[in-house]
Amino acid sequence: MSSSAVPVPVLADSVRLDDDGVHILDRRVFPFERRWVRAGTVEEVARAIEEMVTQSSGPYFAVLWGLVLAAREAEGQDPQVARRRVGEAARRLIATRPTNDQPRKAAAFVLEEIAGREDVAAAAWDGARAGDADYRRRCREMGQAGAALLGEGARVLTHCWGDLYLLGLVEALVAGGKRPEFVCTETRPYLQGARLTAESLAEMGVPTTLVTDGMPASLMREGRVDALVTASDRITMDGSVINKVGTLHLATAAKAYGVPFHALCHAPDPDTESGEQVPIEFRDGDEVLHTLGHRSASARVRGLYPAFDVTDPHLVTTVVTDKGAFAPAEVRRYWA
Amino acid sequence: MSSSAVPVPVLADSVRLDDDGVHILDRRVFPFERRWVRAGTVEEVARAIEEMVTQSSGPYFAVLWGLVLAAREAEGQDPQVARRRVGEAARRLIATRPTNDQPRKAAAFVLEEIAGREDVAAAAWDGARAGDADYRRRCREMGQAGAALLGEGARVLTHCWGDLYLLGLVEALVAGGKRPEFVCTETRPYLQGARLTAESLAEMGVPTTLVTDGMPASLMREGRVDALVTASDRITMDGSVINKVGTLHLATAAKAYGVPFHALCHAPDPDTESGEQVPIEFRDGDEVLHTLGHRSASARVRGLYPAFDVTDPHLVTTVVTDKGAFAPAEVRRYWA
Repeated sequence: MSSSAVPVPVLADSVRLDDDGVHILDRRVFPFERRWVRAGTVEEVARAIEEMVTQSSGPYFAVLWGLVLAAREAEGQDPQVARRRVGEAARRLIATRPTNDQPRKAAAFVLEEIAGREDVAAAAWDGARAGDADYRRRCREMGQAGAALLGEGARVLTHCWGDLYLLGLVEALVAGGKRPEFVCTETRPYLQGARLTAESLAEMGVPTTLVTDGMPASLMREGRVDALVTASDRITMDGSVINKVGTLHLATAAKAYGVPFHALCHAPDPDTESGEQVPIEFRDGDEVLHTLGHRSASARVRGLYPAFDVTDPHLVTTVVTDKGAFAPAEVRRYWA
Repeated sequence: MSSSAVPVPVLADSVRLDDDGVHILDRRVFPFERRWVRAGTVEEVARAIEEMVTQSSGPYFAVLWGLVLAAREAEGQDPQVARRRVGEAARRLIATRPTNDQPRKAAAFVLEEIAGREDVAAAAWDGARAGDADYRRRCREMGQAGAALLGEGARVLTHCWGDLYLLGLVEALVAGGKRPEFVCTETRPYLQGARLTAESLAEMGVPTTLVTDGMPASLMREGRVDALVTASDRITMDGSVINKVGTLHLATAAKAYGVPFHALCHAPDPDTESGEQVPIEFRDGDEVLHTLGHRSASARVRGLYPAFDVTDPHLVTTVVTDKGAFAPAEVRRYWA
């Protein structure tokens, strides 16, 4: 696989550790502005995640480097105290967004590495590095498995911003000479599709068309979409896909028009049996009433913002993991 | 029926004839600003429709009063010449938006009235008045037929802005003591739902929640929607519903979750057999890249904007007309 065939988009390296803290590219204003937010403490990292400075794959990396910050803050203390501090930081960071299961995995890399070592800060760094490398490797492998499901010139519909998951898929498609085209939804209220996906696919050189969140069914009915491919925040052991709200809408339309829906995840979550067990985060309904900081709705209405939705297994064609593709009913085999 | 039970929203009377032209409330900025656009000539009325100063029921009334303008412009001329002028104006105005069939009906009221009269300007006025009254009466009758399909406390999902169609429905629901609640979609890119529907339902005193265009499937899956009800730009003789893009999205989700979809129209269009025969207007794709005049997408992506979509009859539960409710397969009976 030649990942060098695709230019790496800015967002693929947008959470960085430096001496003075974790620097996070502010996705709330990207690509209109390239502003970095410096989080000098674990609490500031947590707030940056809660306030959507970063999202998608971003919180995973923010947790990794936030825990290195925590270990640094405890430097010079007794290793046992330092480990407890890092553990508290992990709980704080994992709690920032309840639906996605990746921050928990990020924390595990660091916590496992510091568990048996006296040099806690160095161990945290090693754990974070390993977690970073693991995530990127799994995205590439998952991308290759996903690319195998798509034909030459595939017209791929995607939703929200799949981040390194999508990057892995595009790299594999381009390396395979498949020349994909994308349609992306704008993904209100934060417009991740219009801003992050549209910009990043352009950086990767992939022809992309933007539509509103209500248009894809119409494109599918006209035969203009070959596959729906999204990342996921979590996939449960019964094959339910939990992802950005709107995914279910696309999946019902895809089912109605015979368009396959391939959902990307490194691995199904062995700790969650079904979609009903996943906590769905509700964010401030006022977000629905605004667009990029401007009021875009009547002053006399209230907004509702379930941030994620659950797509039941019968609406999913394939769960694409770093160990290959599974039918939703068979994701348990990933762990066999 | 007591229509007085519901306060009449501003948009229900937002196209008016005065001595100096047709005054049209600018829906592009409503409800943030209450700005009226004066169209002093037929060409200015046509451009106001094309540029979305008014939409939904608005163009119907703009055509009525625009043709009175045309007749006035020809005042003092030979009646035959005046009638030809009005006929030319009708063609210009009908051509402004190809998908909706109401402007054609508006023009027919005026053209039929002037056909046999020498006092063309007075006749145009009479025809326009008759067309105005007919439209409002039919909306009330259709609203009563629609209300009969909904239970007490019905949670109604709607899309875009159904204008007088929706007003007729709400009047009948409230008059019947049914206390409806609405969920409306914001309806990108013009945000008719967020601005026009949300504001107007608030004016009518109806509890309303706003969601983005991608959220309704999630609400339906959770059993939070009792019915999907939309206006329509046209319903064809095979029962296809042509309406604002996004309607098909909602209809596919409604079908998947057993939520009935009731589509409102005064009458099916006897001149159009199927959805495939309806010209779908494509508007400037740049609209998808902007929100209320602000750029909301990457500078590096192109937008696509099919303004309407076709919902096939098997996704429609009921076609609600001013002669009552029909199954989509039976709309032909309207004209029997």
